[in-house]
Amino acid sequence: MFSQTAEYALRAVVFLGNQIGHPCTTAELAGEIAAPPDYLAKVMQGLSRVGIVQSQRGLHGGFKLALDPGELTILDVVNAVDAFHRVDSCPLGRPGHNSGLCPLHRRIDNVMAVAEKTLHDTTIQEVLQEPGLLCTLPCVVESTSLGKEKPKSRRK
Amino acid sequence: MFSQTAEYALRAVVFLGNQIGHPCTTAELAGEIAAPPDYLAKVMQGLSRVGIVQSQRGLHGGFKLALDPGELTILDVVNAVDAFHRVDSCPLGRPGHNSGLCPLHRRIDNVMAVAEKTLHDTTIQEVLQEPGLLCTLPCVVESTSLGKEKPKSRRK
Repeated sequence: MFSQTAEYALRAVVFLGNQIGHPCTTAELAGEIAAPPDYLAKVMQGLSRVGIVQSQRGLHGGFKLALDPGELTILDVVNAVDAFHRVDSCPLGRPGHNSGLCPLHRRIDNVMAVAEKTLHDTTIQEVLQEPGLLCTLPCVVESTSLGKEKPKSRRK
Repeated sequence: MFSQTAEYALRAVVFLGNQIGHPCTTAELAGEIAAPPDYLAKVMQGLSRVGIVQSQRGLHGGFKLALDPGELTILDVVNAVDAFHRVDSCPLGRPGHNSGLCPLHRRIDNVMAVAEKTLHDTTIQEVLQEPGLLCTLPCVVESTSLGKEKPKSRRK
């Protein structure tokens, strides 16, 4: 359900949600959210294409969130980069199943439907406001060396 | 959540659940469930390794279900071939997050937890007994030519 692409997109959006007004380059963002820069560049293109982030060129350019975090859901972010797949039709293409799914695929789709609704019902603002340190923010034990360390050294 | 590997494994197990006592070769099974034979052979190895199916050698050999469908859950089948992943620890490996997940990853894991429970609570027997034609069985419009058609011609 959650590909690595969706995971990076969510980390990036949550990070930028705390940086409103402060553009962040792909290289900076890659360090902050522990993502490979080249991979992240493609993820950011996907987010930019649907207007979730906007990029500014120039010396102090970079990405910033283009939408109100209160109007942006986790599902929006996932769908921007790696569409959430429901079972819309028989995966085997059985002609007799045009009018509905079989018991197996109906159950699988029910699971996906619940997951999709939960992701649709949760905004980025809710994630940002929830108590608890986001892992896309520098964690306490490392705050003194922020900016000097490379992303890898910040992992366990 | 559901990889193609898991999808083929579920189709195979559901098909074999209706064939108890009648071994089915990988080639036959591949045709019945519309799966590539070489890919399916690896999937069946995975199911065999954990004892969900057993293979019989010889002229009338093949695979059959080794477990009671009433004791076998959808989650068992998925985990046999492509383990269902929860978010067990901080994906960024932040030292400050050893004791719990951040608000973003906690929400993602909550979605996965609900899905995992649903899959764990559903047995293959329940799928087999539910009203509705399974798409791993020949569908009505094609039943007259069963055995003569190749799998591809049975798709839409």
